[in-house]
Order: sequence, then C-alpha cells, then structure tokens
Amino acid sequence: MNTGELVELAQQLRVDSVRAAAAAGSGHPTSSMSAADLMAVLLANHFRYDFERPAHPGNDRFVLSKGHASPLLYSAYKAAGVIDDEELLTFRKQGSRLEGHPTPRRLDWVETATGSLGQGLPVGVGIALAGKRLERTGYRVWVLCGDSEMAEGSVWEAAEHAGHEHLDNLTAIVDVNRLGQRGPTRHGHDLDAYARRFQAFGWHTVEVDGHDVDAIGRAYGEAESTKGQPTAILARTLKGKGVADVQDREGLHGKPLKNADEAIEELGGVRDLRVEVHEPPAARMLHAVRAGHLELPRFEKGDEIATRNAFGQALTALGTARGDVVALDGEVGDSTRAEFFAKEHPDRYIECYIAEQQMVAAAVGLAARGWVPYASTFAAFLTRAHDFVRMASISGSGINLVGSHAGVAIGQDGPSQMGLEDLAMMRAVHGSTVLYPCDANQTAHLVAEMAGLEGIRYLRTNRGEGPVIYGPDEEFPIGGSKVLRSSDQDRLTIVAAGVTVFEALAAADALERDGIRVRVIDLYSVKPVDRFTLRQAAEDTGCLMTVEDHREEGGLGDAVLDAFLDGRPTPRLVRLAVRTMPGSASPEEQLHAAGIDAESITAAGKLLVEEAVVR
Amino acid sequence: MNTGELVELAQQLRVDSVRAAAAAGSGHPTSSMSAADLMAVLLANHFRYDFERPAHPGNDRFVLSKGHASPLLYSAYKAAGVIDDEELLTFRKQGSRLEGHPTPRRLDWVETATGSLGQGLPVGVGIALAGKRLERTGYRVWVLCGDSEMAEGSVWEAAEHAGHEHLDNLTAIVDVNRLGQRGPTRHGHDLDAYARRFQAFGWHTVEVDGHDVDAIGRAYGEAESTKGQPTAILARTLKGKGVADVQDREGLHGKPLKNADEAIEELGGVRDLRVEVHEPPAARMLHAVRAGHLELPRFEKGDEIATRNAFGQALTALGTARGDVVALDGEVGDSTRAEFFAKEHPDRYIECYIAEQQMVAAAVGLAARGWVPYASTFAAFLTRAHDFVRMASISGSGINLVGSHAGVAIGQDGPSQMGLEDLAMMRAVHGSTVLYPCDANQTAHLVAEMAGLEGIRYLRTNRGEGPVIYGPDEEFPIGGSKVLRSSDQDRLTIVAAGVTVFEALAAADALERDGIRVRVIDLYSVKPVDRFTLRQAAEDTGCLMTVEDHREEGGLGDAVLDAFLDGRPTPRLVRLAVRTMPGSASPEEQLHAAGIDAESITAAGKLLVEEAVVR
Repeated sequence: MNTGELVELAQQLRVDSVRAAAAAGSGHPTSSMSAADLMAVLLANHFRYDFERPAHPGNDRFVLSKGHASPLLYSAYKAAGVIDDEELLTFRKQGSRLEGHPTPRRLDWVETATGSLGQGLPVGVGIALAGKRLERTGYRVWVLCGDSEMAEGSVWEAAEHAGHEHLDNLTAIVDVNRLGQRGPTRHGHDLDAYARRFQAFGWHTVEVDGHDVDAIGRAYGEAESTKGQPTAILARTLKGKGVADVQDREGLHGKPLKNADEAIEELGGVRDLRVEVHEPPAARMLHAVRAGHLELPRFEKGDEIATRNAFGQALTALGTARGDVVALDGEVGDSTRAEFFAKEHPDRYIECYIAEQQMVAAAVGLAARGWVPYASTFAAFLTRAHDFVRMASISGSGINLVGSHAGVAIGQDGPSQMGLEDLAMMRAVHGSTVLYPCDANQTAHLVAEMAGLEGIRYLRTNRGEGPVIYGPDEEFPIGGSKVLRSSDQDRLTIVAAGVTVFEALAAADALERDGIRVRVIDLYSVKPVDRFTLRQAAEDTGCLMTVEDHREEGGLGDAVLDAFLDGRPTPRLVRLAVRTMPGSASPEEQLHAAGIDAESITAAGKLLVEEAVVR
Repeated sequence: MNTGELVELAQQLRVDSVRAAAAAGSGHPTSSMSAADLMAVLLANHFRYDFERPAHPGNDRFVLSKGHASPLLYSAYKAAGVIDDEELLTFRKQGSRLEGHPTPRRLDWVETATGSLGQGLPVGVGIALAGKRLERTGYRVWVLCGDSEMAEGSVWEAAEHAGHEHLDNLTAIVDVNRLGQRGPTRHGHDLDAYARRFQAFGWHTVEVDGHDVDAIGRAYGEAESTKGQPTAILARTLKGKGVADVQDREGLHGKPLKNADEAIEELGGVRDLRVEVHEPPAARMLHAVRAGHLELPRFEKGDEIATRNAFGQALTALGTARGDVVALDGEVGDSTRAEFFAKEHPDRYIECYIAEQQMVAAAVGLAARGWVPYASTFAAFLTRAHDFVRMASISGSGINLVGSHAGVAIGQDGPSQMGLEDLAMMRAVHGSTVLYPCDANQTAHLVAEMAGLEGIRYLRTNRGEGPVIYGPDEEFPIGGSKVLRSSDQDRLTIVAAGVTVFEALAAADALERDGIRVRVIDLYSVKPVDRFTLRQAAEDTGCLMTVEDHREEGGLGDAVLDAFLDGRPTPRLVRLAVRTMPGSASPEEQLHAAGIDAESITAAGKLLVEEAVVR
C-alpha cells in the first residue's frame, strides 16, 4: 500500500476501534488509536501470514503485548477480511470470539493470551527462539508493546534473553503514547530513555514518529534487515490520536468515546478498505515428532535414587524418542538435573539463566509453535512465574513445569529454597495436572505421561534420595493412586505423596506392631485425585489422615477433599503438614520438626484411633 | 583501617567462611570468598551501624542480596564482635541463628530474608525510599548483589524505581565473580555489560577490581559523594578467591572446600581481627505514630458502594489518623482507589508503576523500617509478586496487600484481569490473614483492623457496586463471621463471602419461598476462619455449601474445612466455584455462567436438601 492508502487504512482501524468499543460499552479505544498507524503499515506491507492456515510454518507471528488494545487487533482482522463488520460489533459480548483481551482459545490467529502486561514480549521471545534455533523457517515475530508495560521486569528479562540469543527475527514495536492507565508514564515521550535501555541489553533501536506511515515503513524495513540483534522500534504516538476530544488526554484509559458518532466523523467516517496480507514463503516444519521408541530408565527396587535424578534421566530418554521435546531451565540444571538433557540434546536445551518468568514465557512460546517444553527450576522459585502460569492456562497452553527441592526435606538451605506453596499454586490453575512422585520408576513414567496431556502439567521432585519401591514396569495412570498397605481391619487411612510416603510406610509398620492396622495410599496424582480409591478408603476406615511436605493450605489435604465434594458423607479428616517456619536443619530434623515424619504420624495415628474408640 | 589491615580482614572473612561451611558440611564458601574484600572495606571504613541498637534511626542498612553468601555475613558479624567463634561454627545447624540464608526472624541485624535471588536490591530500594522520602535521617543502604541474579527482571524493576526516585542513598555492589550455580553467567567478567544496563536506568556506575581494597574504598567514597543518582559498583572478582584449588573454577558452587585445613593455611591461617564499626550519626525517627482519632467513613445501609471504593476511603482516613501508614500502587490507583489516599497524603504515596514485584519489595523495605505499608493492585496481578510475598513471610514482614477486581464479577474485561487464584495463593502463605469483605462498612473496619496484625495481610475487594448491608458501627473481628440468615429449621448452610453473599441471600429468599429454610454465613475472614460458627452450622444443618467467585481449589471451600481438621466428624460439603475459563460477558452473565449466582445456588440447594431427604 502506498502512503495515502496506509493513512486511510489507519483511520479505518481507528474508526472500527471506536465503533467496537461503542458497541460494547467498554474497552480501550484510545489505546488502540495510538497504535493504528503502526498496525496499518505492518499489516499491509510487512506482515506475512496466511489467515486460512494459521499453522503454516512460514507464517510471521504477531503478539499484541498491550492486550487491552484488542479493538485494534480485531479491526485489523476485519481489514484483512477474516472477520466481518457484524462480528466486530460483538466485541466483549458473551459468546463472542472477540474478548476484552485476545486469547488463542477463541481465535487461532492469536499466539498467546495477553492482558497481564509485560508478558507478550517474553512469549514473543519464546516464539522467536523456536524460529531461530529450532525451526529455521525464516518467520519474523512482531510484538506490539505498550510503554507502561516497560516498567515490568519481565520485559527486561525478555530483552536480555533476546539480546543474548541474537534474535534478529524479533521486532518489538513500542507504542510510546505517554499515558498509562492512571496518568503519565515514568518516561513520557522520552524515546531515548527506552532506546538506551534496549540498547544496553544488546538491541538495535529505531526511534520514529508513530503517526508517520512512511517513517514507520522505513523502521520496519530497518528491523527486517538488521542482522544479529533484535530490533526495538520506539514510536512516539498520541493516545486517542485523531480525535481532538480525547487525543493525548489523561483520564480516558479504558473508556469508550463519549461522542462516538462525532469522533467517527472527525476520523473521516466508516471505510471498508481491504488489505491483502502478504503470503508467507513456502516452508516446512522441521520438528515432526520422531516416532522413536521410548526407552525409559529402569531403576532397581531398593536402590536409593532422588526423584530429581529420575526426572533428568527420563526427560533425556523422552528427548531421544521425541524430536519435539525441548528443555528449559533457570540456571539450576545441575540441581534439577535438566543438565542430563542438556548434555544429550544441547540443540534442544534452552538455558534461561535466573529468570523464571522468562523461562515460563519461553515455554509458552515454544508450545505455541507445537513444541513440547519442559521447564524446570526449584519448586519455590516457580512462584516467581505464577502470573505467567496463570496466563498460560488462559492461553490453553500445553507446558510441562517441573519443580525440584520440594519441601522441608531439602534440609539445611532453609525456607527460602523450600517449595512449600507450589502444590497450592499449581492446583488452583485452571485445568492443571499436578503430580508428585515418590520413587524413581514412578517419576520416569509420569515424566513421559505428562507429554501427552492438555494444559499446565506440574511435576514436583525431591532433592534427597529415597528408595525405589515400584518396579520399572508398573503403570501410573494420571488420576490414579497406589494402595501400599491394606487389610480388612484398617482403622485409618494415611494418604501421602513424595517423601512422606516412606514416612507413612514406617508409621504403618510401627502402628501394626501396636496392633493397629492402617491403610497407606500413595497419592502421586494430586490433581486429578483418585476419587474411587479415596472414597473406598473412607468407607472402609472412616478417617483419612493426609501427610504432606507442604503448607496445610491447598496441598494434599485439600486435594483429598476433591473426592467428597458432591454432597456425599465426608469422612473424618486430619492433616499433618508444615505449619511452622523452618530454619536450617538436617532433612530428618526438618521432617520431625514439621511433624510429618514417621514418629509424628505414628503418634497422631494412635491418638486418632483411640479417640475413635472413645467416640 | 589501612590497606594492610583491610587485606588481613578480608582474609579473615575468607577463612571464617571456609570454617563455617566446613563445620556445617554445606553452604557457599566460594561465593563468600569472592566478596570478602568488598565486605571488609565496607565493614571497616564505610558502614555506620550500632549493633547494640539495630533500630537506631541513623544506622546504615546492609542487605545481602546474594543470601547464599551467608558465611561471609556471619564472618563479618564475628569480626564486628557481635557473634563469637563458637556461634559461627553452629552455621546451618538446627536451632542456630545462622541459617543457610539469613532471615530477620532470627537476627535483628538482617533487614530482609534473602535466598531467592533478585530480591535484595528491590527491598533495598524500599528501605532507601523510606530513608530518602520519609525519614530523611541520612542513612545509606548498601546492597551486595551477585552477578547471576542480574538476570532477574526484578533487579531492573528495582533499578528503574531507584533511578526514577534519585535514590543517592543507595549503593548496589555487584560481586561479578563470573560463575553462577551451574557455570558461567551470561556476561562473565564483562563489567561494561552491567554498567551499561545500570546507566541506562539512570544510575551512576563505578567499575573496580573487587580484590583491590584501596580501589574498593575509592569506589565506596564515590558512591557516598554521588548526588541525585544511586550508584552501582561493578566489582570484578574471582569465585573462591585466595585458594588455588577452587579459585575461578566451575562446579564448586554451594560446596564446602574439600581440603579446608589446607585452604585455611593457604589463606594465612585463622585470625582474630576485630572491627570497630563506625557509629551512626545522631538521628531521630520522624514517623512516630500520630495517635490521631480514626474517623472511618460511614456508609448508609442500602446504598450501593463498591468495596474498592470503601477501601480507598478507609485507607485515606487511616492515613489521616496514623502518620506511619504508607500506600503503594502498581499504576492502577484509579481502579484500586488507592488514588484517594494519593490525593490526601501525596507525601506518603509511592507510585510503583506496573511493577508488582518491586511494589511488594518496596512494601517489605518500608515495613522493615517500621512503616505500615498498604500495597494495592488487581488481585490477578498480585500473582506476579508471589515469590516476594513468600519471602516476605519468611522475613516475618508485616505488610498489607490489597487485591481489587476479584473474580468473574468484573465482567467484560475477561479472565486475564480476574483474580481467581488469589485466595489460594494468599491462604498458603505462612501466618497470613485473608479477608474478603462484601460491603462498604465491613471493608472500612477490616482496612483499619489489618494495620495491627502480624505477618502478611490480604484484603480482596470487588470492582462492582454492592449494597451496604451492615451498619457503620458493626464490628468485624478477624477470625469472625456474620450469620445473616438463621432459624431452627435450617436444612443447609450456605457459606459465602464478597459478591456471593448477595447471591446467597437472594437464594435463601427463593428457597424459603419453596419452604426450605437455609442458614447464610458471611465468611469475611477467610483465614483464620470462624471455627465455632461453622461447627455450629454443621451440627445444626448437617451440610455446608460454599459459594465463591474463585477457583475451586484453595479458596473459601478449603477454608471452611479448616474448622473440621481435628478429626471431628466432618459435615457433608458441597462447593460452588468457578470451574470454567470465562470469556467476556456482563458481570451478571459471568456469575450465572460460573454457576455461582442466586439461581445456581437455589438449584443446588434444592437438589441437596431433596437428596438429604432421600438418604
């Protein structure tokens, strides 16, 4: 498109943004209007995309990091001819694909859900990494960012990652419209301030008048021809550009225009320009799943193996069998054992350094491109990426997360390194799967099983060694459990997972010596739980005691309850969990101090059974 | 101290670090050795601190951001004469104050718990803000950082905040020892790489040989005399410096030295130098609590008020009554209503822009200095700061967090903006208090009540308006609840909080019209819960149904269970919660689609009561 057409197209995007928000009675038209010229030039002259085939391997990728500017995105879809005007006006209405903030659940052209600021660029880095390091099909990733979101540290994690990996297929377009939600941003229209920051992280930068379509075109061209560096385009724009009533004015964020009809007239009225978006070049996916035979590691019963080691070995084996498995780690691969994978498959290992948000975002980007990512760090530090996990679930992203060093059982390092809230965090994620194996063979099977699930999958591993109690051919279905002790005289059921399984078994032995038979369940699948087995245990023994190396809220204890929430009679419930703030101590001392070791379980078990007799 | 003495002191710190780790059998001596010269010069010649009076308002503040280098910190304490050699060798043992990572729970000289990297500098910024903007006593804040942690985005949020606020009382000392946990860092010994980044964020930088005590002294002097900017000292060091076996070598992170005795000899043997740390200048605290009379806003029964509005008004009133209350917000003060406080008390309002990690860290820093911070943003975006909240609880920090825009009830904006996991996150935090008011007067009272609690306190507010149902003089004790409907014919108890209280009341009315009496409890105190009232309800009605605008895991449903975890008979339990992924829709449509509106509650209530009859 030539200059005149581009100017017209930009005005159309503005008009349609105003119309969509007016029809909805909410939304962010002014945030859309500032970026309309940037979008028009991209769509008409630079973006290569086959809307009929969103999975085309040669397609460029567009991420709207400032997700609230969704009216602009949907107006662009209309200009590209893939939604009609009628649909545009369903914006933000129940059942519409055109949500307040775009999500790939509803629209195939959306790469990742945005709306939590500072996440689009990190995910864009993940997609660009896939393009550059794994697929090599030459697509470009374009990320439209707001200026407010530059305050998020995750943006600089992303900038660092992209700079370090020399992602010259990535362009960040920053819509510097000077105004955040509640007023001016830190840097206003100081484009240099942003340029200095990006340059410091190794980016090429271009400063541009974001309402000059020719200058924008040249900037995009410069980004396309820059080698060895990602490019940040800092565009000076005006929020609400084109309508005097709202242009560059505070207090109008997230509000439809008061006089939409007048505004539309001021913008030159409704248009119906159609953009022929450039076709992507022919390209072939390189990562078709290699259907290799999976040879999981096999561990001998009775051997002492840490589940983190089994994870590292199993992931390596999975990577050998499947060419689409990628591992990411937050600079603790020697601890999580992701380093095993790194040694065997260095081409599919992505070192994220100590940047957990970026690690999860990169995984989301890889998953968007069809890869099967496993991202690992200490369970405690996955809390750092909680908002990214939350947004990944909104995307419907299929990612595997692995948290090592669970619980007080890590010992001397103390509470800062202990994952004690991770089960609560991961269980509350919509559609998640939460797994917590106790032994090496169980871990290996679950690592393989995870790959085929939907949504967010979480595996919790332990630092210390524990005995192998299952044979290498035993199966561990998701949603299952293992009954490790059972008799028809059981008077109590102890439900454990991970490290507490061994404590529960020792306690069961001690109780049996005192004439008290108890059932022991290994609840390795924390979500979903094995309702059948738990209900049966409740019926048979009347009382369930959960024992977990986790805070008392949101973990195993609450998970067990999932089996009794349909109004059926609930068994008596007791939970042993970590209720104090640990300090440094040996693993054994920690388990004892927390009251979740065999001795504590035995004492609690006796008390309960005796109480039950009294009642 | 002169050059020779400083060199000797640094060697002593190295030797003692090696000895402490050797005695513990774990720990990070090599990470301590790299920074020993930096610490020696600071302690002996620049730091002003009265160890007898850690609360002295003139004291400088030291934060060990690389918390794993705790042996160095404890060795410095020994050199300062405040712990003895015997205690030094209790490092990492059960019951010792000298934990693997330092925490203020155990040691008054520690400002904040560290060990999750990238958090010390953000908290240091909070302390420096208190010093610069609120206390004006002239103290300096010194933060010793690792180079690996520069990959965390939170470091750059902190850098941005400090640069923007011109915190020239803040010095970051970066121990650039080239090696992270699993190998080389991104930038190795490229000091310029770090300097460029800090400069871009408005810092003064000094590059220095981190083993040259004279150069270090000059760098500290330059930091002290730099006006209008914080200073970052980039120090080139060697990990394990001074012991050939381990110096600058990979694979030795977090490991005691193999040949400790030889290493000590190589370092010149055990010394017993004592440092006379400079006294702080005389200073007076300015923020003695003004014992003003608290005049909370009063709302008329029947009026329609959003609880976020009540929060903003109550916080403003609290700020008028108490001079130690400070508000922080993540650039959404117009939404959370923190802007009400900003208008009335601009001197005690800290705009954190869209940087939730830094916002919570700044709150922790302020709390460490005795201020009472209230930090607010959307409930959804507090997940961004989960790891900071976790670490704050390890610190025993007393901070108030307020999350607005709870649940699907926000309507059209869609899931990215909905707080649906916040209760789960906050309940699992050790020692937390979780409050979820439904009406304006309740909110106002709870906002005031929070100020006096220990630990992490969380208040959840709603976007939309709701009726005022309580009088302005009603009291709402923490751990309490309100029984809103009750009779001796109740056949079911509906437990609600926040927006679902009104839905539950409407359902109760509908059920009563059908001849079914139900009890309704407003469980505004989600943690701790009102055990007595819940147990009574269970006894009276046999079945509890929770209704919450939150995921089914970790929220109200699980909170109710806290009343029945001592092995007593558990009532039948049913929960209505948000089980689907919402899109855009009106608030009413959202509540209905999630199955938590009056109609859904009524239907579920009928089914339950009829089922109970059948059984």
